[in-house]
Amino acid sequence: MSRVSVKRRILRVKDTVRISKVDSLAAEEPLEIRLDGTPLTVTMRTPGDDFDLAAGFLVSEGAVGSADDIATIRYCAGATVDGGNTYNVLDVRLAPGVPAPEPRNFYTTSSCGVCGKASLEAVRTVARWSAGDDPVELAQSTVAELPGRLRAAQRVFDRTGGLHAAGLFTADGEPLCVREDVGRHNAVDKLLGWALRNGRLPLRGTVLMVSGRASFELVQKAVMGGIPVLAAVSAPSSLAAELAAEEGLTLIGFLRGDSMNVYTGERRLNLTSGAGQGSAGALTPG
Amino acid sequence: MSRVSVKRRILRVKDTVRISKVDSLAAEEPLEIRLDGTPLTVTMRTPGDDFDLAAGFLVSEGAVGSADDIATIRYCAGATVDGGNTYNVLDVRLAPGVPAPEPRNFYTTSSCGVCGKASLEAVRTVARWSAGDDPVELAQSTVAELPGRLRAAQRVFDRTGGLHAAGLFTADGEPLCVREDVGRHNAVDKLLGWALRNGRLPLRGTVLMVSGRASFELVQKAVMGGIPVLAAVSAPSSLAAELAAEEGLTLIGFLRGDSMNVYTGERRLNLTSGAGQGSAGALTPG
Repeated sequence: MSRVSVKRRILRVKDTVRISKVDSLAAEEPLEIRLDGTPLTVTMRTPGDDFDLAAGFLVSEGAVGSADDIATIRYCAGATVDGGNTYNVLDVRLAPGVPAPEPRNFYTTSSCGVCGKASLEAVRTVARWSAGDDPVELAQSTVAELPGRLRAAQRVFDRTGGLHAAGLFTADGEPLCVREDVGRHNAVDKLLGWALRNGRLPLRGTVLMVSGRASFELVQKAVMGGIPVLAAVSAPSSLAAELAAEEGLTLIGFLRGDSMNVYTGERRLNLTSGAGQGSAGALTPG
Repeated sequence: MSRVSVKRRILRVKDTVRISKVDSLAAEEPLEIRLDGTPLTVTMRTPGDDFDLAAGFLVSEGAVGSADDIATIRYCAGATVDGGNTYNVLDVRLAPGVPAPEPRNFYTTSSCGVCGKASLEAVRTVARWSAGDDPVELAQSTVAELPGRLRAAQRVFDRTGGLHAAGLFTADGEPLCVREDVGRHNAVDKLLGWALRNGRLPLRGTVLMVSGRASFELVQKAVMGGIPVLAAVSAPSSLAAELAAEEGLTLIGFLRGDSMNVYTGERRLNLTSGAGQGSAGALTPG
């Protein structure tokens, strides 16, 4: 049951030419995540890797840190009045002794109210590990290749043009896991869930590459996964850069071709050895 | 107090050239919206037009439909332990007789559980007006100019490259209101709040143009504002197209240059009269 794209007849218009054709659209469906039977959240997602999405959501919230923290994940039958299974409702049972998380958000703390500073504090309070001391180094040429490698791994985007992508890579640029979703946060949660369920948390020595912008929320998810480097095709927000600085992450934005902006943690970028494809040694602007 | 962008020193890398420079980042800060003193939601937004954002959020939720439904909106002093005002907490007081909304989401109904169909039903149940019978027509040339007009009106994007934009236009392509935000849904809520507070709901005869993709949530907001046409630079999701079809909206995607995909409601597009800049009369592909 593949539901990652949906076909629909559309009218394609270009100048004075009109063509009626069947097009593929990125599938979007709600997913309700329940925890021990109690509804926790509903997110609009592209169906697929739903167990990873649920597990990764709990990683992002700081509720679980290893595969052992989760007893079972299953689709709920009877999620409709006729008793059918929509495959849009999941129930996660935590392992015995693992406390249920309190409803939480990362935007506010009781100590200093609602502001950017409170958001940074909230992440620090909840994070299970710190990537600040991760000594991983990346060659500039490796970083420059990440957008192309992420794009090459996007299967559904080619059909629909409508999905965000997130990829986990080694320091050598080898892809570990790539996920696509209509929601950028879901794509990252699917990666974190994959990592949890495969015993790979914290994700030391890895790079998270995302197709769009870098928001506070995406940096927060990188922190919760123990990922030391976040690279984005587009711009970061102010609070994304602040959180990255505070947690010791390397944050790269506007990663396009051989150019990039390094907002924080430039110590992890090996700019000399890998640089200069075609212009090696040229250290003056040109 | 302009907080729409924040300056930060970055390292700009291009090939073997590195430049340390001060860059502008799109500001991101949490905003807590309270309703009659009770916390309702927290959203990460770009500060500015916060009253519109709060009012528009309540329009999107179906809680209010006219300016008279809201008695007051004010920033909460004492939102921190030292009693200071962070300008990140708002309290909305509804007018006497206006019922407080129940916590709601548009992804689920009690009648048929959690699925795309339930999401469509939930919007239909809550919507105060229907744009399905709106007879507005748009010339193709007008639609083709919207992305450029939206881009021209983006002030903060020019500095930061990091903001989503949403613009309301007349059927002649004249801008009524343009808003930018790190969150795409916030930019649209700011428009809806502007419309509510200026007595313009429902927004009959208008076009909503967004800088990114068209999700279910954005079509839902267009429906809640009574907007008959939604145009997006990028792809719509499957559920966005389904909701647009069900509610009689015109949904346009991949609007770039003189080309566009029309997913639903092509009856509102006047493809003959305005078409063919530079190739008028050519009705065969070329």
